[in-house]
Amino acid sequence: MPVWPALAGADQLSSNPTTGAPGGSTDPLPSWRSGEARRRILAFLEAVTTEGGAGYVPPEQRIAVFDNDGTLWSEQPMYVQLAFAIDRARALLRQQPELAASPVIAAAASGDGKAVMALGSRGVLELVAQTHAGMSTEAFALLVSRWIHTARHPVLGVPYTQLIYQPMLELLALLRSRGFRTWIVSGGGVDFLRVFAEETYGIPPEQVIGSSIQLRYGESGGEPELLRLPEIDFIDDGDGKPVAIHRQIGRRPIAAFGNSDGDLAMLRWTTAGPGERLGLIVHHDDGEREVAYDRLSAFGKLDVALDQAGSRGWTVVSMRRDWGRVFAGAARVKPGRSPNSSR
Amino acid sequence: MPVWPALAGADQLSSNPTTGAPGGSTDPLPSWRSGEARRRILAFLEAVTTEGGAGYVPPEQRIAVFDNDGTLWSEQPMYVQLAFAIDRARALLRQQPELAASPVIAAAASGDGKAVMALGSRGVLELVAQTHAGMSTEAFALLVSRWIHTARHPVLGVPYTQLIYQPMLELLALLRSRGFRTWIVSGGGVDFLRVFAEETYGIPPEQVIGSSIQLRYGESGGEPELLRLPEIDFIDDGDGKPVAIHRQIGRRPIAAFGNSDGDLAMLRWTTAGPGERLGLIVHHDDGEREVAYDRLSAFGKLDVALDQAGSRGWTVVSMRRDWGRVFAGAARVKPGRSPNSSR
Repeated sequence: MPVWPALAGADQLSSNPTTGAPGGSTDPLPSWRSGEARRRILAFLEAVTTEGGAGYVPPEQRIAVFDNDGTLWSEQPMYVQLAFAIDRARALLRQQPELAASPVIAAAASGDGKAVMALGSRGVLELVAQTHAGMSTEAFALLVSRWIHTARHPVLGVPYTQLIYQPMLELLALLRSRGFRTWIVSGGGVDFLRVFAEETYGIPPEQVIGSSIQLRYGESGGEPELLRLPEIDFIDDGDGKPVAIHRQIGRRPIAAFGNSDGDLAMLRWTTAGPGERLGLIVHHDDGEREVAYDRLSAFGKLDVALDQAGSRGWTVVSMRRDWGRVFAGAARVKPGRSPNSSR
Repeated sequence: MPVWPALAGADQLSSNPTTGAPGGSTDPLPSWRSGEARRRILAFLEAVTTEGGAGYVPPEQRIAVFDNDGTLWSEQPMYVQLAFAIDRARALLRQQPELAASPVIAAAASGDGKAVMALGSRGVLELVAQTHAGMSTEAFALLVSRWIHTARHPVLGVPYTQLIYQPMLELLALLRSRGFRTWIVSGGGVDFLRVFAEETYGIPPEQVIGSSIQLRYGESGGEPELLRLPEIDFIDDGDGKPVAIHRQIGRRPIAAFGNSDGDLAMLRWTTAGPGERLGLIVHHDDGEREVAYDRLSAFGKLDVALDQAGSRGWTVVSMRRDWGRVFAGAARVKPGRSPNSSR
């Protein structure tokens, strides 16, 4: 598993992370260095927004879909939602010590995300059932809100919301300024993401698609509520992504952004449509400023999608070469070893 | 089952069905007669849009949800989607005469919607499986588009899209002009509704929630496709409506519009939230201009919701008294008997 280099300091906080544009600059993508990736993004936007041009797309069809973990924010050393589940497991264990008998709760409470993932999908689902269910949607949102505003990244010591990628924030803002609606299509839990997606990315709850557990409508104390049940409803990953896009958006996007094979079907579905299309893969090849990893990883495996990028016309963004700045909140970290570096 | 009075003529076509405002009028609800329903709608809008007022609601939270069948358009003498399924069953039977052995296909091909409904939910699901699945999402959308633009109401002889309610179109337009986003939350099939919701109601595909069958992502002839499977995915009715609202919108609406007990949970969930709320029930009590029915009907039963309306503060709209005009396209029909009239 990749190990994050030690933090030098959160010394380059963005004054305006939503637009990313430093005062006075008219460059809409100041953190994107000159190169093929930047050029392709701007050429695509020019083509689809030029009225009368061959590639023009009317605003209502300008839909862009973004994976979240590893695409909009860091997924290292573990998915942020897994860190939440670990903290929840610890809190539950304090209240109910008998839960120590559960292998998945014990693994989670030890703080070892890799050990939890090693328990496989059944283990992860049990962890979700134990830590994400058995309460109303409103109670869950409150738990997540408290957590996301107080938790700190285990290595860098900063809030997770500072570990969003500044270049992607600029891209989100640029797309919106060109009439696009930006959607998140994540394997993570939709009710987790929605708590902070609006303040963090400017993406409203109704434009967040994710995995979900089942809900039951009923009354509690004379008031209606939606109770979160310990049963999976939908896994929004892999082939599930185009299914969820169709179900919730009902139109095919014209731009898709991902970073792993979990985004392969979404990229393919998006870019196989007629007319101008943009498919983009964020390639984690920067072992100095983030973590270099791709083919083999407990989190965020990028393999088939990387191999297909050339033939499909997808743009592979090298974080190392294409991004002048990585994080919105903590821009520079000390150099360190990257045991699972990109090839 | 209610029987529709014979058509006098589609002689009062709206010149501007989307806004509904006749030239020169500044009344945003010209088809709503003076009375309690109209007054409550306008008072609610005034309260939630007055900045600095106690009831002010910021625009991003102005979400209004509408049932479709019986609320935005007529569901008599049968659900429009059932008429589509009947026409599909007849077409399939011509291609595959052996399907006559299927009771549900035989019932549907006879054109008797009531007989189909009498087969119960299993029968309806089988009909959906036979007539709505086994093709790509794009092929299905094309079938629906061809049908909705050519089919005629069996009694009135006009396109179904003329049988949308003019007062509700005006209400949709008024809400949008006040910063609301309008959503459909229907028990009908989402992929059926989305084909015409934008041109008919001004509601884009991504704001249509409905029932769905399962989809499978795959490739066909080298191109990715979403195949419609003969398995129910989700029934967006009754307690399913607040579940789907949460899953797809992620916020609680502040206004809900329905016409049957299938909308009870949606009305309750919407109006139980804090602050100003509007719950409204369209009551089909006009046996002259439409069909009078409520408590007992093969389509659109309104019973518990009507009983609870008073104590919950929901507005019951009398189509007979509150609406100066009923249909956007065919405004007047001959008086006729209403065998299942409202009490």
